[in-house]
Amino acid sequence: MQPQIKIFDSTLRDGAQAEGISFSVRDKLEIVRLLDDLGVHYIEAGNPASNPKELEFFRQAAGLRLHSAKLCAFGSTRRKGIAAKEDGNCGALLAAGTPAVAVFGKSSLLHVHEILRTTPHENLRMIEDTCRFFAARGKEVIFDAEHFFDGYALDEAYAVETLRAAARGGASCLALCDTNGGAFPWKIAEAVRALRAQLRDVPAELGIHTHDDGGMAVASACAAVQAGATQVQGTFLGFGERVGNANLSAIIPNLQLKLGFACLHKDQLRALTQTALQIASVANVSLHKNMPFVGASAFAHKAGMHADGVIKNAGSFEHIDPAQVGNRRRFLMSEVAGKAAVLPRVQKIFPGFDEANIAQIVTALKAKEFEGYSFEGADASFDLLIRKSLGDMPTFFGLVNYKVLDELPYDRKSATATVKLLVDEKLKIAAAEGEGPVNALDTALREALNDFYPALRNVQLLDYKVRIMESTVGTSTKVRVLITSGDSRCQWTTVGVSHDMIEASWEALADSIVYFLLREQAGDEID
Amino acid sequence: MQPQIKIFDSTLRDGAQAEGISFSVRDKLEIVRLLDDLGVHYIEAGNPASNPKELEFFRQAAGLRLHSAKLCAFGSTRRKGIAAKEDGNCGALLAAGTPAVAVFGKSSLLHVHEILRTTPHENLRMIEDTCRFFAARGKEVIFDAEHFFDGYALDEAYAVETLRAAARGGASCLALCDTNGGAFPWKIAEAVRALRAQLRDVPAELGIHTHDDGGMAVASACAAVQAGATQVQGTFLGFGERVGNANLSAIIPNLQLKLGFACLHKDQLRALTQTALQIASVANVSLHKNMPFVGASAFAHKAGMHADGVIKNAGSFEHIDPAQVGNRRRFLMSEVAGKAAVLPRVQKIFPGFDEANIAQIVTALKAKEFEGYSFEGADASFDLLIRKSLGDMPTFFGLVNYKVLDELPYDRKSATATVKLLVDEKLKIAAAEGEGPVNALDTALREALNDFYPALRNVQLLDYKVRIMESTVGTSTKVRVLITSGDSRCQWTTVGVSHDMIEASWEALADSIVYFLLREQAGDEID
Repeated sequence: MQPQIKIFDSTLRDGAQAEGISFSVRDKLEIVRLLDDLGVHYIEAGNPASNPKELEFFRQAAGLRLHSAKLCAFGSTRRKGIAAKEDGNCGALLAAGTPAVAVFGKSSLLHVHEILRTTPHENLRMIEDTCRFFAARGKEVIFDAEHFFDGYALDEAYAVETLRAAARGGASCLALCDTNGGAFPWKIAEAVRALRAQLRDVPAELGIHTHDDGGMAVASACAAVQAGATQVQGTFLGFGERVGNANLSAIIPNLQLKLGFACLHKDQLRALTQTALQIASVANVSLHKNMPFVGASAFAHKAGMHADGVIKNAGSFEHIDPAQVGNRRRFLMSEVAGKAAVLPRVQKIFPGFDEANIAQIVTALKAKEFEGYSFEGADASFDLLIRKSLGDMPTFFGLVNYKVLDELPYDRKSATATVKLLVDEKLKIAAAEGEGPVNALDTALREALNDFYPALRNVQLLDYKVRIMESTVGTSTKVRVLITSGDSRCQWTTVGVSHDMIEASWEALADSIVYFLLREQAGDEID
Repeated sequence: MQPQIKIFDSTLRDGAQAEGISFSVRDKLEIVRLLDDLGVHYIEAGNPASNPKELEFFRQAAGLRLHSAKLCAFGSTRRKGIAAKEDGNCGALLAAGTPAVAVFGKSSLLHVHEILRTTPHENLRMIEDTCRFFAARGKEVIFDAEHFFDGYALDEAYAVETLRAAARGGASCLALCDTNGGAFPWKIAEAVRALRAQLRDVPAELGIHTHDDGGMAVASACAAVQAGATQVQGTFLGFGERVGNANLSAIIPNLQLKLGFACLHKDQLRALTQTALQIASVANVSLHKNMPFVGASAFAHKAGMHADGVIKNAGSFEHIDPAQVGNRRRFLMSEVAGKAAVLPRVQKIFPGFDEANIAQIVTALKAKEFEGYSFEGADASFDLLIRKSLGDMPTFFGLVNYKVLDELPYDRKSATATVKLLVDEKLKIAAAEGEGPVNALDTALREALNDFYPALRNVQLLDYKVRIMESTVGTSTKVRVLITSGDSRCQWTTVGVSHDMIEASWEALADSIVYFLLREQAGDEID
């Protein structure tokens, strides 16, 4: 029986260092919820000393009730020459109010001399003091030994001393960092094995924190666990500075399905792909289709010999059963798709639905996907698609036309929209100004519908995302707009696609309102 | 002194199995040229039995004069029960006329039984006969031992027998394939080490062919070489079925710069990044910015502390000197970047710039970032910001006003824009239609400027990205638009921010044109 491995996710801290990644407070709270649902053990969510947005996040996060994860804030050891309690950064870290803290310090003499510019002795004091400061205040302390493997190669004894200093200060986990991402897995495994022997007297576990600069972060993390590390740090999709951090969505199934370590509950592991898609959606990036385990191509077979092999023996071209990670096998250029996934959704709306009639829905779905729609994150639009393709869709309003004028310079607001609708066989026209064309259009649409559907006043537009779909044809490429709306009871997401982003937005806005009105009509929650 | 490692590139064969990758004959010839210039040793360019396009390619490729690479065609062992010379596929492979052939055969008893459905003995005969058929006709024969590691785990003796059969037939390289991508690097290294001992009497070298399903193909290939393999098979950018093949652009620098093996000539290694960009361009995919070694972000530093560390000691956050692979260090311009990162950029534009005056630029940068700008990926806008804040910015045109009308339903195009500019003290008005408001605005702007700046005709809009910045306030949130433009010589990226996405787009469009005109005015490249 292999030991339990603790998964430490730093998507919100090290992941936010990636070029092009930026999380709002709301994004961060959403990702905390997703990771907690998946069952990770630690969520490192930011450096509270770095800017006021981080503190605001920790203030709001304090109210979350998490099932499996401990929130963790990240910060450095105290500065040289002062007490931890007088160090502003340590104070901010404490103020974050998280049950766990990750304290990073230098394990390489080179960095002690050249970057910190202090003495080896003072560096050890800084590490020990800072860990003690937090341990004494009831925090679970994880020590991130920065540049550990470089330091270990340079001066093994000193690098080990930094770990001992952290443990003396009360750190319960000593995370060995390959900070510049240049170490090889076999070197890492060798070091972890040696440390396990050397630190037998130290009551702290070993963790591993790798970066992908050499393209080996996943292998290195797995090698370290094989050698005795029991905490793995990474980011869920491998986001991170430069090439990125170790990708947890690859490490977890490697450890659990192939090496026999326990990481997540088996059922939670089946949510791996879905979680990856959701985190990518919050981060507003497309999930790279070639991601191991969770990518759309990870179990895709081109027609021919491989597909034939897989049908005869799945293991021939699949290293695991894709269902174990919630992904699915795809035969490219084949019409076999989706029925099994679509049917439960249809039966949720139409409980008596006959499986034999599923083909028309799958056809409608494929046609929409061909146009560029993606219903992954847009369940509400998918439900409407099902209703439309079965001819069971009431008409709440029809668009006669809209016109949106946007100009610069402008007086008060840059955009004006008029919307003309047919509602209950009456023509209704409304106009509104807005801070941008979509805001104006949204406001005018609500204005036109308010008299007919007063309950719409409770609906708020919560989130708006735009994704450019192909990046080679300039401003006339297609765009996909995702809109999340909500009222006091629930939230729902709709999608629109067009060459014109205003038209795509219109489609998602209209779907959002129709979905709400359907729910109102049914008199209960649809979700 | 470590031995020479032979690089075997299968971008054109295994890489073409990737979802979304498809090469024309012309593309393939171009990639052969690029790989040969780089100095790889073998280029596996297709399976001549698979379709007529492949044969046409080999016919044309026969005329190429290559400097370093041998062309290689790929095919299976003869079918069971017939002679190789009567097998159509073997005939097609021979007809390809390449100096080397790669013959794949089964090394796993499971596949012999379940997929081939023949006897273990006949499978050995098939391997030996086929290799002998090609060796006798003067070909250099590489035997691809399919599913080798699974077969070796299942029945070690039989798997080794398949290698011996190939060597008896005249194969000079025995390439061990992790066909389903599920093996761990340490298992692969262990097997290679054992085989080296077992096959001491066999006059063939060992090769390694890995897939990335577990996210470890690069580590596995490097581990195999450490253990004694002397040929590495992969695809240059990791293209391949499912998750992809081992990525040679990561393996080569790991082996050569960090483990001391010779792969390419040192000067050729400096062409690594450029070759990656060119192959991506021929394949019509964007080079993923997080690729190890060759990606645009591979040596990009964001956090202030990291940038500070790199300036003090490059090795602290860089595992190699980026120049060794033809890449470059970048400091992402962000609120955490600080003076040290900004100064070199300013001095590139204004060589005599006095460090003491940096404060006003940093202040301007921070003010813009507070408004929501991010100059991380927008180097061109950052250069313009420097010029503006130092009062050194010519006026190429001024906006009097624009008006954009977007409507549904529409006749031919959904958007119409008019733009009124002041250029050279003359008023100029132009109008255009477009597929969406930004496309219309872009077209009208160029229309208005064409008479004054005819060189603008060479500028293309290459990429357009929209990011919603705070996702809590619905459609009136701020948006950030990034636009990448290019001409035949280079590419540049600009940024705009506004509550109104059309205004944000305008700003990025206008910056993009101003940046180009500045460069034209200076009469040379600014980058």
